[in-house]
Amino acid sequence: MTLPAGPKSWAESATRLVDVATGRSPADMVVRGARWVNVHSGEVLGRHDVAIAAGRFAAVAEDLSYCIGPDTEVVEAEGRYMVPGLCDGHMHVESGMVTVTEFARAVIPHGTTSMFIDPHEIANVLGLPGVRLMHDEALTLPINIYVQMPSCVPSAPGLENAGASIGPAEVAEAMTWPGIIGLGEMMNFPGVAAADEKMLGEIASTMRAAKTVGGHYASPDLGRSFLGYVAGGPADDHEGTRVIDAVTRVRLGMRAMLRLGSAWYDVATQVKAVTEMGLDPRNFILCTDDSHSGTLVGDGHMNRVVRHAIAQGLKPVTAIQMATINTATHFGLERELGSIAPGRRADLILTSDLVTLPIETVIARGTVVARDGALAATIEPYAYPAMAKGTVKLGRKLEPTDFDIPAHAGANEVEARVIGVIENQAPTRALTARLAVADGLVRADARQDVAKIALVERHRGLGTVVNGFVSGFGYDKPCAVASTVAHDSHHMIVVGTDEADMAFAANTLGAVGGGVIVVSGGEVLALVELPIAGLMSDERAEVVAAKADRLVAAMRACGCTLNNAYMQHSLLALVVIPELRISDLGLVDVTRFEKVELFV
Amino acid sequence: MTLPAGPKSWAESATRLVDVATGRSPADMVVRGARWVNVHSGEVLGRHDVAIAAGRFAAVAEDLSYCIGPDTEVVEAEGRYMVPGLCDGHMHVESGMVTVTEFARAVIPHGTTSMFIDPHEIANVLGLPGVRLMHDEALTLPINIYVQMPSCVPSAPGLENAGASIGPAEVAEAMTWPGIIGLGEMMNFPGVAAADEKMLGEIASTMRAAKTVGGHYASPDLGRSFLGYVAGGPADDHEGTRVIDAVTRVRLGMRAMLRLGSAWYDVATQVKAVTEMGLDPRNFILCTDDSHSGTLVGDGHMNRVVRHAIAQGLKPVTAIQMATINTATHFGLERELGSIAPGRRADLILTSDLVTLPIETVIARGTVVARDGALAATIEPYAYPAMAKGTVKLGRKLEPTDFDIPAHAGANEVEARVIGVIENQAPTRALTARLAVADGLVRADARQDVAKIALVERHRGLGTVVNGFVSGFGYDKPCAVASTVAHDSHHMIVVGTDEADMAFAANTLGAVGGGVIVVSGGEVLALVELPIAGLMSDERAEVVAAKADRLVAAMRACGCTLNNAYMQHSLLALVVIPELRISDLGLVDVTRFEKVELFV
Repeated sequence: MTLPAGPKSWAESATRLVDVATGRSPADMVVRGARWVNVHSGEVLGRHDVAIAAGRFAAVAEDLSYCIGPDTEVVEAEGRYMVPGLCDGHMHVESGMVTVTEFARAVIPHGTTSMFIDPHEIANVLGLPGVRLMHDEALTLPINIYVQMPSCVPSAPGLENAGASIGPAEVAEAMTWPGIIGLGEMMNFPGVAAADEKMLGEIASTMRAAKTVGGHYASPDLGRSFLGYVAGGPADDHEGTRVIDAVTRVRLGMRAMLRLGSAWYDVATQVKAVTEMGLDPRNFILCTDDSHSGTLVGDGHMNRVVRHAIAQGLKPVTAIQMATINTATHFGLERELGSIAPGRRADLILTSDLVTLPIETVIARGTVVARDGALAATIEPYAYPAMAKGTVKLGRKLEPTDFDIPAHAGANEVEARVIGVIENQAPTRALTARLAVADGLVRADARQDVAKIALVERHRGLGTVVNGFVSGFGYDKPCAVASTVAHDSHHMIVVGTDEADMAFAANTLGAVGGGVIVVSGGEVLALVELPIAGLMSDERAEVVAAKADRLVAAMRACGCTLNNAYMQHSLLALVVIPELRISDLGLVDVTRFEKVELFV
Repeated sequence: MTLPAGPKSWAESATRLVDVATGRSPADMVVRGARWVNVHSGEVLGRHDVAIAAGRFAAVAEDLSYCIGPDTEVVEAEGRYMVPGLCDGHMHVESGMVTVTEFARAVIPHGTTSMFIDPHEIANVLGLPGVRLMHDEALTLPINIYVQMPSCVPSAPGLENAGASIGPAEVAEAMTWPGIIGLGEMMNFPGVAAADEKMLGEIASTMRAAKTVGGHYASPDLGRSFLGYVAGGPADDHEGTRVIDAVTRVRLGMRAMLRLGSAWYDVATQVKAVTEMGLDPRNFILCTDDSHSGTLVGDGHMNRVVRHAIAQGLKPVTAIQMATINTATHFGLERELGSIAPGRRADLILTSDLVTLPIETVIARGTVVARDGALAATIEPYAYPAMAKGTVKLGRKLEPTDFDIPAHAGANEVEARVIGVIENQAPTRALTARLAVADGLVRADARQDVAKIALVERHRGLGTVVNGFVSGFGYDKPCAVASTVAHDSHHMIVVGTDEADMAFAANTLGAVGGGVIVVSGGEVLALVELPIAGLMSDERAEVVAAKADRLVAAMRACGCTLNNAYMQHSLLALVVIPELRISDLGLVDVTRFEKVELFV
């Protein structure tokens, strides 16, 4: 299989670049009269010209009119700033519920020209072949999309079954693919600190390939456990939330990735390490981790993060370094991208203000790909193969009785464990509630805000349904919300107050191949179809964003007042974050990493 | 052939490092209570402990007493600073006229634990096998010595013959060797700017191996020629002398290597780019390029450079970054060395003052290798094979008449071209002088300070002698100075006022296998034997330094008052630096890169 993977290498283009730089051959494009935001020197310089050839920068100088020939495209910058194309240092395309292609279409007008994506979600559904699909799709696009090989599939072996599993052998194989840049976030931090053979094996496979090991240490403990994690080899981490998190990571030789996602707000606190404590900024990187399609459509992508970082008091050029050269250096690409300098991929933005950062022109690999917020490049939709679809295998039609929760024989009331949602936070609380029994079945209780939750196995068609209770959504009507986005193993989570609606929601998602649905009284209030692995739409980000808006409205109509309710819903099976979760194997106490009974 | 190449990799040591960091296994060594010079964060922190295992840092924290077991070696720092072991970013071991082993012995007590060496001189004598010899020797040593593959052998094809030649195929082969870190200084900058196929081919071989292309752009022209050179791919340059040189290199995405060698003083001017202009220091690297054994013995190595950089107004931690992490990052080794952080090779210095930088303890790969200026490691002399010796092949006994310069028939006087030495500078002047003829032979003229210079072919035993004139040494006695160190092709340069002394000097060097000699009136005043390739002694640096001192004294005794006279002598055949030089092919005008006649 031949993959188009960006422009020819610098080595292959050197003769042409030298010829252009010395004036023996005209450039393909010259950008004239742009103030040069120089991320190597940390300066904002006066007007310079840039010559581009073969998709790469050939020269930068005050006057390159000698590089202009009859066929050279001239872009007049008229004194605007030229900034290297922005890089997202760590992110999951699946969070946008769109394909890599549609994600790129959405973010290019925001000035993103490089992304380091971790297809962790599709890996949980389709394994290595799923990673390869997104990897191959990435290589077709006109911006630089590098793939981090997912490391933790399943996230919590023994506590859940995923659709696939990944180990050192899969990692070693992926390291030979052209678009793989390193290992995706090593989330099993207890495993690394315990010197778990499989986790260290994956890291070793990555190190042997001289690639970057992504980290993910989601604990406030900076003692021995953290020291063990760092000694294990992860080179970066985006899970810090306090300034001491960023400071400690950097001092110990990791790069601190500061995250501003749709629901992550970790830049403002941690950037004080630079703005107040004066740490060398070179080891700080900006990233989004997770962006919903609504954020991409309405607010932006890395331009939003850089703008936010500047608003926290960073010098603009420093913030830009954190989204360009720092990222490139981290991934061993400092001579390939991330700056406006000879030999690098010709990715740049023209903007008239370095603080508000309006993205006026975007050039990627020497081609104008967006102007004034509109895509200028032609990017065809990407067709996923059949193996990526029809992945929601329920094995049978679900019935309302599948969601029945029988009480102990003769009980009128039970004391049940209840997953307690905490608004705007990923952890849950392990609650209990006294619930009434009728006809031998334990009932949800809207007065206590206790709804039913079911985890429906959907990878192997086993027909398994694990039932439990959840509190915090506020549903006060007969309804059900179901989703095949169910981190990390992505079975199907159904939350509801009515068993018939729950069965209808689950069966409907099964029929459309996955997605998110809100049902009330047998009627579909909202549906986002996600036919690709049950995770991604094949529609445009605007379309998906609009559907997601209807989803939020529908959840509200059912009584839910929670902020980010859909995200909370999709995290209820995340058996790596405390305290109580549900998996295809049962209810899981994530403070002790073991299964527990539903009834106390 | 199995080569010991430092400690086991991080990947191979990870289990042990994690076990030590978490307290499950005691450390091999713990350094206690050291102020942590943190080159990642750019901070100087309070007292910290460091645990070392398997030759690597396992953990750094305020208290690591839990890592100390019964067999753990404890080094009490008592509040001294711990600084990462110093790195020399570009240097030639041969300039010290000692082996890699003896160079290492000399510099370890100065705190050098990593060197990036370019064995350019031996490559000119022995070609790729010579590079391999020094490469293999480097891998036996207890500090990190990476080799840059020489790129320009011969330096000036067509204007000289070297002992060997190197092209893209040799470069590609060397890139597969374990200790090769990149391509050595690409000196043929006109070739790169002309898109010369061979030069770009060598660069391409290096880029394909994902290694670093060293630069060497020795011209003040920062226009199209420089832009062409940068577009060709060199990633660093140590030839800048003015602040604009450093600034321009960094802005265009190269790293500026600031050089303080025995005879290079390029730090003070260029470091103003940081201290006065405020450029981001991350792309500045300190190096020595060329250190004579006398400098190593008397003044120091990288500690001398760092101390000097601090004296120019750099913050100590910034200067230290320029000799540690910046260098490591440049060569793709930022997770392998150059900082005191988990996983990296355990190389550090203890010093009680960050300004004067006394080197009190040196630890390399977790072993104390020097204390209070004295080597503590056992390093055996390295035996070079026979093929590296006996390389001075004159083919016959030279006679005084070999140095005769016949005039045109019947002339009483001639107008001759004379190489004019400029004190303390590498370039020469193209002078002319009117010289008397006696017995049909042109005579040297001490009153005009014109001596004879001869280039004696010594690689192929051809017996060729090219004669000319040189001015500037001030020899006023019958004498001859001969050297087989004769950059870059390293034939033999003989300068003298007496033909018999010249022949005696040349024949004596031939007999001892090369070196430098001063002869007067048939008596040897000083001799440094350099039996390895005619370039390197197999004795200790102190011994060589003492002999070199005698050499200087002997040249003085012959009337020479020039500063660095030996270096000037050895550069007279360097046919890449203007204006007039001598080679085995004749006299060379290095402003026009062509041969010229001796007589005007």
